[in-house]
Amino acid sequence: MAITLYELAGAEQDRRFSPYCWRIVMALRHKGLDFEGVPWRFTDKDQIAFAGTDKVPVLVDGEVAIHDSPTIAAYLEKTYPGRPSLFGGPEAEALSRFTLDWTDLVLQPALFRLIVADIPPLLEPMDAEYFRRTREARVGMKLEEFVAGREPKLEALRQVLAPLRRTLTHQPFLAGSQPAWADYTVFGTFQWARCVSPLKLLAEDDPVYRWREAMLDLYDGLARRAKGFEV
Amino acid sequence: MAITLYELAGAEQDRRFSPYCWRIVMALRHKGLDFEGVPWRFTDKDQIAFAGTDKVPVLVDGEVAIHDSPTIAAYLEKTYPGRPSLFGGPEAEALSRFTLDWTDLVLQPALFRLIVADIPPLLEPMDAEYFRRTREARVGMKLEEFVAGREPKLEALRQVLAPLRRTLTHQPFLAGSQPAWADYTVFGTFQWARCVSPLKLLAEDDPVYRWREAMLDLYDGLARRAKGFEV
Repeated sequence: MAITLYELAGAEQDRRFSPYCWRIVMALRHKGLDFEGVPWRFTDKDQIAFAGTDKVPVLVDGEVAIHDSPTIAAYLEKTYPGRPSLFGGPEAEALSRFTLDWTDLVLQPALFRLIVADIPPLLEPMDAEYFRRTREARVGMKLEEFVAGREPKLEALRQVLAPLRRTLTHQPFLAGSQPAWADYTVFGTFQWARCVSPLKLLAEDDPVYRWREAMLDLYDGLARRAKGFEV
Repeated sequence: MAITLYELAGAEQDRRFSPYCWRIVMALRHKGLDFEGVPWRFTDKDQIAFAGTDKVPVLVDGEVAIHDSPTIAAYLEKTYPGRPSLFGGPEAEALSRFTLDWTDLVLQPALFRLIVADIPPLLEPMDAEYFRRTREARVGMKLEEFVAGREPKLEALRQVLAPLRRTLTHQPFLAGSQPAWADYTVFGTFQWARCVSPLKLLAEDDPVYRWREAMLDLYDGLARRAKGFEV
């Protein structure tokens, strides 16, 4: 039976920009699984309520409907064991959790500070209003004020990347010689930025840039071909 | 043939406080390998020159002399494959690199800012002079000035721990249900702090505290019994 993935979309249906959805898109391709991506908007809460959540990604596989990106990854690994492993064993799955938590708690906020104001103009009007209202409540000011003074924040981002940068000087991917779930968790956030903002986050001589290029090339340039900006 | 590990020591021979040596001590116990720990001081550069380095850990195993903690871990895994794995496969070994780099570039500096001034009084006079001179050159001020105002720095440390904390709410150890090399890399830095400073770094209700307690209990309380402070 076909797999369906509910994916956050902008005003243009093919601007699929959620970092958490990108993790699952890459994971599905990693496993060689076909799926139908269904565009979803922030304000379409009713559309995914059947899965017991109000956030994407939501994955439907036959009778199963699940949400939360690491839960979905674990499901795919367990359900499709004959396909390439997303992790490389239980220890690697556990260690990928730290990479994910670092992405969610350190990397994502550092990029959010830089590019969040680029997002509302790309959304449908209802979503733009919702996004601005909820995010401005969170940061306590207008998004445009929040991202003001990008240069020092860009420097801060590049410092935040220090451990990732050093790891990627030792090996091509976080998971070693080949990409795996840990790479997708981090890459999702870079791809989110690429889909919504023209800001050049990385210098071309940065090992993180080289890694991101390799990730963009995976699966016939899947992420590179996605609607976004050349960064 | 017996394994020898050169370990950084304080004025008291049994105050073995290097974070990088602790990684290897835990790794050797993980593999069930006996070893002789040889106390070494910062100014004993000549004593380890045979290994092509001026820093510990240096591990000597028969004809082999190696340094650099991840290099030593990889050597032990390869040389003693019949014993419990330090990693759990090549992907997990690669992913452990990110945990190590996060420890070296984020966690270690955050603790250094808090406790570095506690170290010189615990060292032999020559080492104390060397340590103070090299570290004060690095930070550009007296160590006592550098650590002044601990409270906001302690708060900063607790924020730095956010991704580690979240991972440890999902699972007992970084490597999953059992500790492995990734846990030892992070733990070495906490054990360094415990060996040299009475400062209470963690609140008792912090999942990181619970994990550190479990690490202190490993191998018949090896790290807990080491000379240090009750923290």
